[in-house]
Amino acid sequence: MTDDGFTVTPYTVSGEIDYENVLEQFGADRLTDEQIARFPTPVHPLVRRRVFYAGRDVDRFLSAATAGERHSIVTGRGPSGAMHLGHIIPLYFAKHLQQQTNALVYLPFSDDEKYFVTDNSLEEIGAQTRENLRDLLAVGFDPDRTRIIVDTADADVIYPLAAAFAPSVTGSTFEAAYGQPKNIGHAFYPAVQAAHLLLPQLVEGRHPTLVPIGVDQDPHVRVCRDIAAKRRYDVDKPGALLSKFLPSLDGPGKMSSSSNSGTTPTIYLSDDRETVFEKIHTHAYSGGQPTVDEHRKHGGDPQADVSYQLLHSFFEADDDRLDRIEREYRNGALLSGELKEMAADAIASFLDAHQRRRRRLDSLETELRRYRLTEHEREHARRRVGHSTFKTMI
Amino acid sequence: MTDDGFTVTPYTVSGEIDYENVLEQFGADRLTDEQIARFPTPVHPLVRRRVFYAGRDVDRFLSAATAGERHSIVTGRGPSGAMHLGHIIPLYFAKHLQQQTNALVYLPFSDDEKYFVTDNSLEEIGAQTRENLRDLLAVGFDPDRTRIIVDTADADVIYPLAAAFAPSVTGSTFEAAYGQPKNIGHAFYPAVQAAHLLLPQLVEGRHPTLVPIGVDQDPHVRVCRDIAAKRRYDVDKPGALLSKFLPSLDGPGKMSSSSNSGTTPTIYLSDDRETVFEKIHTHAYSGGQPTVDEHRKHGGDPQADVSYQLLHSFFEADDDRLDRIEREYRNGALLSGELKEMAADAIASFLDAHQRRRRRLDSLETELRRYRLTEHEREHARRRVGHSTFKTMI
Repeated sequence: MTDDGFTVTPYTVSGEIDYENVLEQFGADRLTDEQIARFPTPVHPLVRRRVFYAGRDVDRFLSAATAGERHSIVTGRGPSGAMHLGHIIPLYFAKHLQQQTNALVYLPFSDDEKYFVTDNSLEEIGAQTRENLRDLLAVGFDPDRTRIIVDTADADVIYPLAAAFAPSVTGSTFEAAYGQPKNIGHAFYPAVQAAHLLLPQLVEGRHPTLVPIGVDQDPHVRVCRDIAAKRRYDVDKPGALLSKFLPSLDGPGKMSSSSNSGTTPTIYLSDDRETVFEKIHTHAYSGGQPTVDEHRKHGGDPQADVSYQLLHSFFEADDDRLDRIEREYRNGALLSGELKEMAADAIASFLDAHQRRRRRLDSLETELRRYRLTEHEREHARRRVGHSTFKTMI
Repeated sequence: MTDDGFTVTPYTVSGEIDYENVLEQFGADRLTDEQIARFPTPVHPLVRRRVFYAGRDVDRFLSAATAGERHSIVTGRGPSGAMHLGHIIPLYFAKHLQQQTNALVYLPFSDDEKYFVTDNSLEEIGAQTRENLRDLLAVGFDPDRTRIIVDTADADVIYPLAAAFAPSVTGSTFEAAYGQPKNIGHAFYPAVQAAHLLLPQLVEGRHPTLVPIGVDQDPHVRVCRDIAAKRRYDVDKPGALLSKFLPSLDGPGKMSSSSNSGTTPTIYLSDDRETVFEKIHTHAYSGGQPTVDEHRKHGGDPQADVSYQLLHSFFEADDDRLDRIEREYRNGALLSGELKEMAADAIASFLDAHQRRRRRLDSLETELRRYRLTEHEREHARRRVGHSTFKTMI
């Protein structure tokens, strides 16, 4: 993909990304106005404003969601460090949909993959997993309709499913999607990923699943869709909702991919109000003019302004207010510093609420109990791919 | 390895095998007279008569075994079909050692690998696993010192261990040992195999482990030894006791490898006395002369005679009686038909006792309960490689 001056794979995102070109390369579809209008009202800003700009089989998901039929969302987390804004936003999006349509939400933690592709020790990844789980619990999913899965801790179900799917993926399929595997764990991981994406259907029976992810993660969905198509399990191919990257603080040219965490300044979920203001003030790339006078005269460029982009993507849900902000920034009435204050305030308030919910959580074990797969659900999933366990072997 | 006119890998055994040459290729050591003498008395015929003819780190195992220190044996089963004589003999050998030295015996079932490398469905492999487990239980291991593990049914411990080892194995390591993987499950399998071979130490603490296997399976041990050396887990590299192949019925030239099951006539564990006599009579390659007169005159060749070889390897434990049989066959006093009767009788009696014990077994679930890893043991193993589970994450 280097011909186009940029690279988008689940492990590398670099260059100035041409999002339309990526779709052509990946073979996914641009979201249409009609599709966006079919999302339950109020349509989430991420969809309405086309941060989620493309997808696969979105219509089937929307039909089930609007008809009150079973449907699910899978959106996971690779526990590779402290979570930042870009990590949590898709989770709040999933919660929004769950509240609107009663979607099942499955949240897999790929602690195994992080061990395969980073130099972190299992102990470090374990500690990160614990911290990340608390952030995820703070989002406030409905425990009756949400399952949290940690690959190594739920290996009794994840490995038997992955083993069932693994023969459908050859080494060449891996290389076409991801390049050379770093080791045999990494090579195996697409089978684990397929287990994640098909798990809701294997537990609950066939239904449309939507995977909202950064467009760089689309290869995982494609490999899984091929498995679902090939092996004739009684499952739908999982659909996808593909997003552009949130801008990183140092500008829209440098994107903060879902797989990349923090060589550039980043707002962490644990940042307090003061830190957020400081980071936005110091680091958020501005689309404004060098001096106040010039800004008043020529106005700023909201497309290039990270503070504006953050409000646009997620932090200013009100379209009228956002329009006004854009207009006033463009005509110079709104100064860069003022725009930064608005973004910082919105983000700090969001984080403050998140952190308050996080602090109120009970112990991880107590909280997780309600979100883990039941024995019955594990057994269902294993049986649906053809396994019999000791219990049922007799 | 085709330069030497034969191939020995875990997935292919062909040609006339030069067992000394294999050792050179694999870098294992021939068993010395001193080592054989150090095995507990009575030394099992398989060792005494050098069917087990080579090994790795055999001395450390023998030191622990003779000093009454902790030591273990790992010998598994790939459930790919009905078990034949060649499959069960290593298990009886392990039981013999367990009775002599209180060895821990770990018996992993690689149902996942069989799914990765054969065309059998998970349902078929599940059914084979159930049947094979009953044969294994019929051997009569000491439940207090024996653990039976089925990869997919014990994935809660096997996958976390395999995931811990997987980053130590690159694609090139795989290819050097096994050639091209058939799919990403197959590619991952060396990590699972390492989990098998290191499991006794991860459950019970560091100690010498011996893996008695066909020499064709040695690459699995080598890959695991490299992992044990590389990652600095608190484990000894597992040792190996490497065997020649038992002759298949149609002659010592065609060997029945541990990975090969039955395109040639084979004696199954379920064969009754009549069938055993019929198979030996019809198919067992004879080292005798074409006519009785010629045989009386020139004598037979015990080395070429499958019936003699079966008695030699396993079914005639008494050295004096075996010597007499060899002498009388060689000088023509013992006829081919008589030799066949002796072998068939010994095998049929062995199988009769095995089948009787198998019939007396309770349900698989009841029987297995005593042989499965306890929760405590699983937790130990996971912790020793660095995992924390939900239970201990808090």
